[in-house]
Amino acid sequence: MLYIGIDLGGTHIAAGIVDDEGHVLAKAETATLAERPYREVVRDMASCSLEALAKSSHTLDDVAGIGIGIPGVADNKTGTVIFCTNLGWHNIPLREELQKYMNLPVLIDNDATVAGFAESVAGVSKGLHSSVFLTLGTGVGGGIVIDGKPWTGAHGVGSEIGHLTIELDGIPCTCGKDGCLERYCSATALIRMAGEVGLQHPDCAIMQKAKGDIRNITGRMVIDLAKEGDELAMKVFDRYTKYLAIAVNNITSFLDPDMVVLGGGISHAGDFLLRKIVEKIPNLLMFKTLPYPQVALARLGNEAGVIGAAMLGKLGMDYAEGGI
Amino acid sequence: MLYIGIDLGGTHIAAGIVDDEGHVLAKAETATLAERPYREVVRDMASCSLEALAKSSHTLDDVAGIGIGIPGVADNKTGTVIFCTNLGWHNIPLREELQKYMNLPVLIDNDATVAGFAESVAGVSKGLHSSVFLTLGTGVGGGIVIDGKPWTGAHGVGSEIGHLTIELDGIPCTCGKDGCLERYCSATALIRMAGEVGLQHPDCAIMQKAKGDIRNITGRMVIDLAKEGDELAMKVFDRYTKYLAIAVNNITSFLDPDMVVLGGGISHAGDFLLRKIVEKIPNLLMFKTLPYPQVALARLGNEAGVIGAAMLGKLGMDYAEGGI
Repeated sequence: MLYIGIDLGGTHIAAGIVDDEGHVLAKAETATLAERPYREVVRDMASCSLEALAKSSHTLDDVAGIGIGIPGVADNKTGTVIFCTNLGWHNIPLREELQKYMNLPVLIDNDATVAGFAESVAGVSKGLHSSVFLTLGTGVGGGIVIDGKPWTGAHGVGSEIGHLTIELDGIPCTCGKDGCLERYCSATALIRMAGEVGLQHPDCAIMQKAKGDIRNITGRMVIDLAKEGDELAMKVFDRYTKYLAIAVNNITSFLDPDMVVLGGGISHAGDFLLRKIVEKIPNLLMFKTLPYPQVALARLGNEAGVIGAAMLGKLGMDYAEGGI
Repeated sequence: MLYIGIDLGGTHIAAGIVDDEGHVLAKAETATLAERPYREVVRDMASCSLEALAKSSHTLDDVAGIGIGIPGVADNKTGTVIFCTNLGWHNIPLREELQKYMNLPVLIDNDATVAGFAESVAGVSKGLHSSVFLTLGTGVGGGIVIDGKPWTGAHGVGSEIGHLTIELDGIPCTCGKDGCLERYCSATALIRMAGEVGLQHPDCAIMQKAKGDIRNITGRMVIDLAKEGDELAMKVFDRYTKYLAIAVNNITSFLDPDMVVLGGGISHAGDFLLRKIVEKIPNLLMFKTLPYPQVALARLGNEAGVIGAAMLGKLGMDYAEGGI
């Protein structure tokens, strides 16, 4: 059978037709235009899906289910989006609305959860019993897979690994708490640390690339300069990866999954990032002689959203019963 | 059928005969005398078990399996204790040695894991799909139950929740890292915080109870004084419970289990502790309008070790395959 996976983002909607093994047969995209009434957004999610289906030369009769990844929290018992801050959605009956266009089972979950699940079906953590996925972007999203299935907790409020406290009374977070992991491990955090250095050293290479304005600093700039051997950029990157290694170690000390997968913008630093993390791990371990989770880079890139969502559709309504 | 549960501690060995529902039919205890050769300790584990069995008026024919809780890490594939610091054990073939006396399946796991599992079989978290147990004692132990079974991770190094970093470059921990949760949430931490106050206020009620010597301060003293309304003791207890609430919130943000269970010495503060934690939780939540894990006090006390170990025996060798 085939499955429709929809990646609903704040700016773009992507829909894909995916087979049982997580291969994308066809894709279509459109703008979200999030300020519109939700019914118009959902209509475009449906038309985008049907466009991809036509490209794949299949019909709805070949499709067993639909999955949707959202930047928020959903209740799969009712098919409702509870929160979706980027889109300004609150208690939106997404399943019911989408089923007006395509009368198939619809499963919804958080985008980081869905991306982590995709990696465990068709990516770097394929076939592993357990894994934890981190998206290192504007914030830090978390996706937990246990027993090959996505885990968002008993009340659907888990896998928010970006909001573990790692610094008591630390940097205030957008969530209202202080010292959350994402304030130290996101791309935003790397840029902030580079900005601090830039203010102290207005003539440094980072500031030259940023044309003298810390608001122009990007994560890419810092990583590129660090790769080129710039001392201050390397110092910033070392500080960032120290925190990220602590995050990986917290995941090990808590869940000890088979693998920790790093995705999102910062993961494009590739082996340069991975080496920096992996070299710091042994020093943080409780049991120095025992094995510990492998750390790896995500493989599916932007397709993870569509693949993971489709694989939710494959899990089917059994999953809804276990979820919130 | 019946199961033998053995709680192997640094000072005491307890063995119990437990039925399918987690009821203890009979118990026996003896001193560990950990400095002896391990074979003598294991012999006493066996004789203690057989003494309890005789008290229960049953024979080994009625027993389906044996479980052991240890203050360390075990490998259930080989039946070996990998680490057990209190006992000075390293790579001890515990299963093989015990089977010389009782030829039954033997499962071994960490004592906090076993105690948490006991609560989920016969205690406060009975029958719940998922729970996380914290022992608040000299350190902070963690026990994770997922899908009704103990979870110690893919490599057996998980559920060490006391060693999550909650303060970057924080207080050095016995494990070699800095800023571990147990440095802020254990009984040891409460005593340290009280000692800091005692040094600043040598005439305070805490110091009077401690006869002017901070080395005499106990967790019980601080809690009793706080209950009586002593202002400084209350301030210390408020600081301690602030950190413990953050620990509970980290568990929520990560795993979001059905319930977080508080056990160990500090949990004897009872509802006085629970109220202080529960009142702090809502302020820490990411999604203020969604449900979240219940926080509860452990119910089984010292019997948790024996009950949980026996229930490991009930899980049987299927569990060994899943464990490290």
